[in-house]
Amino acid sequence: MKPKSAGIIFALDIAGTFLFAVEGAVVAADAGLDAFGILVLSFSVALIGGLVRDLLIGAVPPQAIKDWRYPAVAFLGGIVTFFLHRYVVAIPRPVFITLDAAALSLFAVAGSEKALDFGINPLAAALMGTLTGVGGGTLRDILLARVPVILRADVYATAALAGAVAMIAARKLGVPPVLAALAGGLTCFALRIVAVWQHWALPRLPGAA
Amino acid sequence: MKPKSAGIIFALDIAGTFLFAVEGAVVAADAGLDAFGILVLSFSVALIGGLVRDLLIGAVPPQAIKDWRYPAVAFLGGIVTFFLHRYVVAIPRPVFITLDAAALSLFAVAGSEKALDFGINPLAAALMGTLTGVGGGTLRDILLARVPVILRADVYATAALAGAVAMIAARKLGVPPVLAALAGGLTCFALRIVAVWQHWALPRLPGAA
Amino acid sequence: MKPKSAGIIFALDIAGTFLFAVEGAVVAADAGLDAFGILVLSFSVALIGGLVRDLLIGAVPPQAIKDWRYPAVAFLGGIVTFFLHRYVVAIPRPVFITLDAAALSLFAVAGSEKALDFGINPLAAALMGTLTGVGGGTLRDILLARVPVILRADVYATAALAGAVAMIAARKLGVPPVLAALAGGLTCFALRIVAVWQHWALPRLPGAA
Repeated sequence: MKPKSAGIIFALDIAGTFLFAVEGAVVAADAGLDAFGILVLSFSVALIGGLVRDLLIGAVPPQAIKDWRYPAVAFLGGIVTFFLHRYVVAIPRPVFITLDAAALSLFAVAGSEKALDFGINPLAAALMGTLTGVGGGTLRDILLARVPVILRADVYATAALAGAVAMIAARKLGVPPVLAALAGGLTCFALRIVAVWQHWALPRLPGAA
Repeated sequence: MKPKSAGIIFALDIAGTFLFAVEGAVVAADAGLDAFGILVLSFSVALIGGLVRDLLIGAVPPQAIKDWRYPAVAFLGGIVTFFLHRYVVAIPRPVFITLDAAALSLFAVAGSEKALDFGINPLAAALMGTLTGVGGGTLRDILLARVPVILRADVYATAALAGAVAMIAARKLGVPPVLAALAGGLTCFALRIVAVWQHWALPRLPGAA
Repeated sequence: MKPKSAGIIFALDIAGTFLFAVEGAVVAADAGLDAFGILVLSFSVALIGGLVRDLLIGAVPPQAIKDWRYPAVAFLGGIVTFFLHRYVVAIPRPVFITLDAAALSLFAVAGSEKALDFGINPLAAALMGTLTGVGGGTLRDILLARVPVILRADVYATAALAGAVAMIAARKLGVPPVLAALAGGLTCFALRIVAVWQHWALPRLPGAA
């Protein structure tokens, strides 16, 4: 079973990387970046969260550097978007949001699990899962000289954090790892989808700009 | 004596982390970030300088990841600021500036000492101390899509650098470590306070924008 | 021969570091930064690309931290620019572009070689060479709250990438390392110079902003 489940997880990870790369490329094209800039944003959105996580937990060189398939898939996402842009942007928004929520859930849970495997404490492991999910989008916004959207709107990073916390809590309560991962992933996915559907937003301080 | 002084340094370090986290949260609230954004800026301002220093000197995983008490204190600073915002912003500015100068001095000196302990040369160790003191505020400004204030105004990073240089120079001259640390800390603190009081600014090139 | 060629490479590397530091200082002065900001941009433009590369390939502490001569030369570039600003900006633009293209070629090829030496795969090694060449300029633009120029204009990063790819391909084809490095460097240099001369730009998506 082990090799088979590892294969499934790798396939999902590659699919999530491809999806995030496509999303990065779409934003880059909208912002008027050139072909090189599109590839940089594909790489960044897809891989920077996990790359920084790996630096922080001591997994050096990071997976995105060590395994050439990850950057290759990220660039493929950018290239596909460049040449099939009109078809990519025609994909209905609910499809994108659903797939994105699934990839976010996977990244948050898998990122936390990797941190735990490297002996990181539960609080920092939950942060590492969140970073895996939202780090790429944050760098995207920094590169576009914008305040990162996760800091000012949307229940997105919060969903990633909730999924990571749920997974870690389940494991601490003795739930088998696979079930704990599913519980965490479903928590993140459900929270994200409901938040988009219900237009949830996090509180701000009254009177702030 | 060793355990006792280590306990004092840890308490000061935690106090400085809390203070920087509160400062980050105040700026985040002013900028209209939501609750998640406030926590991110609390973490960033309080811990990113030391975290990047640890990556650079090879202390991996960084202390802010390895020891859960640091992120916990940083988030506590953010949460306290969120719920007691009106009281926090009512604290007189001179109090904040004095406490901030004290925390900056501590971070600059302790950051340089840690770099020296890891066998880093004096020049880079002084830079690591400065980074420990001002790295968090720099990331805060990057996340808010602003030119970092330390690059364009104020004697702030310069005070941190001066404190780090004074400490390292004192140790090279054979001054005992505790006295060298005090000399460095007082140099930074005094320079920062006098600079605010006298409205000192660093030179620019004439005719520049 | 080995020590002699190592000495030549070190001298070129120091010369390239100095040049990039001067360029960073000129931009910093134009942007109205103070003396500290000028030194930060000198350091960043000259050394951050290689520093991040070293973190990613596991060469910790990075060379820019381990060897005090690199930051010293970067700061020297900033100081010289500060005091001799009117003479520096009087240097004809073609001279700057030619020297910059030479430094870019050196950084791209040497950065890729170092990654290969650390056992990094060819795709990631080519990315590491590109990062070495353009990472500093990217951070410069982030610190100035601008969209990095390499993402939206110019054949600059692309030249670095082409040089890195040419060097790696030549080595895979059995070309001796010195010749492969020369082939890579000339590829980058020629592509950059011709691109400036012919006003080449990378394609964008039609209809994008």
